[in-house]
Amino acid sequence: MSESDPQSEPAQLTVVLPDGSELHVDEGATVEDCAYEIGPGLGRDTVAGKLDGDLVAKEQPAYDGAELEIITDQSEEYLAVMRHSASHCLAQAVERHYDDVDLAIGPPTDEGFYYDFDNLDIDEDDLAALESEIADIVDEDYEIEREEVSIEEAEERLADEPYKLELLSEFADENEQVTFYTQGEWEDLCAGPHVDSTGEIGPVKLLEIAGAYWRGDEENPMQTRIYGTAFEDESDLENFLERKQEAEKRDHRRIGNEMNLFSIQDVTGPGLPLYHPPGKTVLKELEDFVEDLNKDAGYDYVETPHVFKTDLWHRSGHYENYQDDMFIFNVGDDEFGLKPMNCPGHAAIFQDQSWSYRDLPIRYAENGKVYRKEQRGELSGLSRVWAFTIDDGHLFIRPDQIEQEVEEIMDMIIDVLETFDLEYEMALATRPEKSVGSDEIWEHAEEQLETVLEKRNLEYDIEEGDGAFYGPKIDFAFEDAIGRAWDGPTVQLDFNMPDRFDLSYVGEDNEEHEPVMIHRALYGSYERFFMMLIEHYEGKFPFWLAPEQVRVLPISDANLGYAYQVANEFDDFRVEVDDRDSTLERKIRAAHDDRVPYQIIVGDNEEEDGNISVRDRFEDQEYDVEIEDFHDHLVAERDEQRSEPDFLQD
Amino acid sequence: MSESDPQSEPAQLTVVLPDGSELHVDEGATVEDCAYEIGPGLGRDTVAGKLDGDLVAKEQPAYDGAELEIITDQSEEYLAVMRHSASHCLAQAVERHYDDVDLAIGPPTDEGFYYDFDNLDIDEDDLAALESEIADIVDEDYEIEREEVSIEEAEERLADEPYKLELLSEFADENEQVTFYTQGEWEDLCAGPHVDSTGEIGPVKLLEIAGAYWRGDEENPMQTRIYGTAFEDESDLENFLERKQEAEKRDHRRIGNEMNLFSIQDVTGPGLPLYHPPGKTVLKELEDFVEDLNKDAGYDYVETPHVFKTDLWHRSGHYENYQDDMFIFNVGDDEFGLKPMNCPGHAAIFQDQSWSYRDLPIRYAENGKVYRKEQRGELSGLSRVWAFTIDDGHLFIRPDQIEQEVEEIMDMIIDVLETFDLEYEMALATRPEKSVGSDEIWEHAEEQLETVLEKRNLEYDIEEGDGAFYGPKIDFAFEDAIGRAWDGPTVQLDFNMPDRFDLSYVGEDNEEHEPVMIHRALYGSYERFFMMLIEHYEGKFPFWLAPEQVRVLPISDANLGYAYQVANEFDDFRVEVDDRDSTLERKIRAAHDDRVPYQIIVGDNEEEDGNISVRDRFEDQEYDVEIEDFHDHLVAERDEQRSEPDFLQD
Repeated sequence: MSESDPQSEPAQLTVVLPDGSELHVDEGATVEDCAYEIGPGLGRDTVAGKLDGDLVAKEQPAYDGAELEIITDQSEEYLAVMRHSASHCLAQAVERHYDDVDLAIGPPTDEGFYYDFDNLDIDEDDLAALESEIADIVDEDYEIEREEVSIEEAEERLADEPYKLELLSEFADENEQVTFYTQGEWEDLCAGPHVDSTGEIGPVKLLEIAGAYWRGDEENPMQTRIYGTAFEDESDLENFLERKQEAEKRDHRRIGNEMNLFSIQDVTGPGLPLYHPPGKTVLKELEDFVEDLNKDAGYDYVETPHVFKTDLWHRSGHYENYQDDMFIFNVGDDEFGLKPMNCPGHAAIFQDQSWSYRDLPIRYAENGKVYRKEQRGELSGLSRVWAFTIDDGHLFIRPDQIEQEVEEIMDMIIDVLETFDLEYEMALATRPEKSVGSDEIWEHAEEQLETVLEKRNLEYDIEEGDGAFYGPKIDFAFEDAIGRAWDGPTVQLDFNMPDRFDLSYVGEDNEEHEPVMIHRALYGSYERFFMMLIEHYEGKFPFWLAPEQVRVLPISDANLGYAYQVANEFDDFRVEVDDRDSTLERKIRAAHDDRVPYQIIVGDNEEEDGNISVRDRFEDQEYDVEIEDFHDHLVAERDEQRSEPDFLQD
Repeated sequence: MSESDPQSEPAQLTVVLPDGSELHVDEGATVEDCAYEIGPGLGRDTVAGKLDGDLVAKEQPAYDGAELEIITDQSEEYLAVMRHSASHCLAQAVERHYDDVDLAIGPPTDEGFYYDFDNLDIDEDDLAALESEIADIVDEDYEIEREEVSIEEAEERLADEPYKLELLSEFADENEQVTFYTQGEWEDLCAGPHVDSTGEIGPVKLLEIAGAYWRGDEENPMQTRIYGTAFEDESDLENFLERKQEAEKRDHRRIGNEMNLFSIQDVTGPGLPLYHPPGKTVLKELEDFVEDLNKDAGYDYVETPHVFKTDLWHRSGHYENYQDDMFIFNVGDDEFGLKPMNCPGHAAIFQDQSWSYRDLPIRYAENGKVYRKEQRGELSGLSRVWAFTIDDGHLFIRPDQIEQEVEEIMDMIIDVLETFDLEYEMALATRPEKSVGSDEIWEHAEEQLETVLEKRNLEYDIEEGDGAFYGPKIDFAFEDAIGRAWDGPTVQLDFNMPDRFDLSYVGEDNEEHEPVMIHRALYGSYERFFMMLIEHYEGKFPFWLAPEQVRVLPISDANLGYAYQVANEFDDFRVEVDDRDSTLERKIRAAHDDRVPYQIIVGDNEEEDGNISVRDRFEDQEYDVEIEDFHDHLVAERDEQRSEPDFLQD
């Protein structure tokens, strides 16, 4: 904080409100003061604030030029504030029930909160007692008091808390003040913000106990993490718990194991999935599907190394921002790294040739494996991995081709999302304050993106200033079968990389021009998309994607020969014969458990008539089906499921 | 050398001759002495020897238990000895023509020899004078004398040769003797062996000048390397030079650049090719071709990471032998590496499930990229790279399935080699002295491999004792269009890895059994096979493989619309329209230079008649061709070129 000039009136400062208007307040005014300045109602309702996007306590002083948002119980962020307070109640309850526990940290998360403890011996059975203790703390309605104290005093108060002391030791400036939050007999070193009293906390549910390394680093001690959540009312909590149960039923790690889709093994390493034959079969169908789309849209496949000299990323500018997330090693004096993205390799291919304006657009596609060094503690199934493959595409186009190319990419993305029955929405993210590229190219580009969005009569949001520094973009988001929201594909223009790689083409005017680059992926990461699909379909993939599409079940061993003969008629599909010595009932159950879309049942009757009985995943069974008819049906089903929507067929 | 007991008769030692017989000689007997012991004629003809496979001077003492082979001018190794002497003549000639040159090393190579010099300012124009000086040295017929001297004396003699002194400094034992070879006024520190006099050296040709780092390490100074070759007579030399010229015309690096197949760039790194669209198109056809073969043969595709914890290779046993060739890095306390082979990953997938004897054979396939850290100085185009993809396959089978599975793999390999018109031969490599696995399994396996070879009426060699320590194998070798020999695919049985990974299946007897593993690849490395194909076909790929298969040439701009209409009829092939403003003659030349198999020429006549003219790569042109007929022709040509040979179609 800067000191005001003692000889003058209190200096004024200016904050910018969400609607873009400016508010002038005295220097030293807190977030709450600003809210009262706007209006006494808002002042009273203030729970916390956001300064330049950071959630802060309402007691925090504003500063000149800050973008300020007031958080009330109507704000989206309110839930996070309230859950943070709930995590304090959890820690308070734990310390009421257990002695000598060491506190670590207890933040809110997207879905609730957790608190990490050391020296806590607890199991899932103990959670009910803690939950009831938390309910008492909420009933007791303690005021949650915020207090600023010196580092010295904080050290005294935290003498018995080694982890808190470690956090405290990192404050560089000894003169800095830190904040404590106190509720009843309990206090915590915490930056806040919090609700005003424990009584404001809605229903709390403790979810599970897990191990977690102190600060996510596996060289540190393993602590006990208790996860919980809180909502504003019981019905929200119940909805959440139902969705959670549904999600657990669909957990891709469990289904992946049941269906033999993939494994992640100790001996092979963390975050590095091995795809087993059924998993690779699904992946391959996904690859083939985008390959068809790419070929129709004039993309050429290329192949770039997984390892590059880091010179490449110095050139692209990624090194500076990405090096900590990269796997880097030396060979002799040169530094090499596993690629964290495919774009610089594609730029290097484009740059290796000379181009005329007539050659553009150039569209490169690659199923490119990339490597990002996530914290090991964060790795989980296929959703967080170290190595993943992007169905990556990069276009090098003339500025006058933006509209046409973006439109085609949008169609491809929508095709993919509709093929998998995903509801989507999109947003146009425009020029941020700091950006590269001329006004002319930005305006021209944003205009063309808007034209595409308008033309399709698609609803979309505009996210002002949310574009990348190197270009505007269109972001998709979608919902899966149980209503979970996912970040979807992005169409990203890039005015920066062409410059860094000195990319050029010779225009109609015989001069050198710089192309615009477009980054786009339809799935994004195959790993994440595959994981989403497993959970979206609960492993019951649509027919065209299913690892095993048809299983022939002979009613008795006597029908085995006919079963193989029938299977042979379906050998353009993934078909198996259940030749085990077992009852039909058991075979039907096994096929059902293995999530095979169609069962063909053959017994003496079928064999005599030369036909089949067919059973689907919904346990509908049809008798006296002609083999050829069913084959035609399957061909039609596959083709329809993976076909392009009507508006793409032109 | 061990000292003999002074009180007894000269001790005897025993060496083993190539026919397996034993020869007893006095301790201290040289290679030449041994040769005289066998017979005086052989003694006189002895040029050098091989002790346990190492080429040594004939003056080298034999040792007890050594396998000894006598090298004469009839031996395969003679050429290398003579070329080594030729490299000395080159150095002698250089020192006659240039002052203050520093000598580095001058070994024979597969195709000739080189000598590296520092402080030598020379260009290709100067080679003729050196060649003529070498011819003089040969004419002067100096005796090549071998001399053993102490390290101390060697240091004195080499006082002006810094690189030789560096080599000398590495002799650990100061009491060791080193050898010098002297011819006329010139001498060199050299282990030999050499021919007896310079007059025995056949015609010498100097080939080129290149830069080379001292000891292949780019941190060392760049020296001047002069390449040359020598043969026993002029006609062999001429044949070689013709083949070399032919090979240069076909150099895949030049053709790769002309056809835009791939690039290897400074900024992206050495030995790490980027495949451009036309190159990736050919690769993709190659991938699809083996995919078809694999699917017909019941292989399942899997996908394994490129990075593994090194624990995996400790387990597989590769770490011990392979670590120096691996790219290894640490993440936290754990060591990770880029995979140098795919087999351990496939073993890990197999091991993740339990298997019954009825499930076997299990056949996994993967286009698996592997990484091997070759010396940077050795990297060259696609022939020596750091990262290459293997069309890898691993089978897990019961011992009773060896014959059937190996037979199928042999068929697949032969199919591949015949598809590319490659003449091949094969050899069965049997159990070496040191090996793992029971007598029973080795005998059983070798018997089954022989049965397969016999059954097919295929000629083959038996290489006794040349199998891997972990199993016998069948090796293929083939010849390309200009008669160069290539190591081909291998079918390798493995009794070791199943044991190291504890692989098992439950047999019919309900007991656990260990499967046999088979390693096999049809191409081997895509990079090396692609490189071979480029040179084999001189870039004129067969129709099915050609990156651009058909080009439509409108005679004038007036025919452009019809040209696109025709191209559209061939859109199931890779077709382009030459829409440049140019003469037909130039368009024909461009299509020829671009190695496009078929040109469709359309002018007013064709447009009027609704047909086309067709021109092939042999400049045959046919007029009045119906579009549909030509399309049928292309479909038939493609299908025939990539079809399976008759004996596989059952």
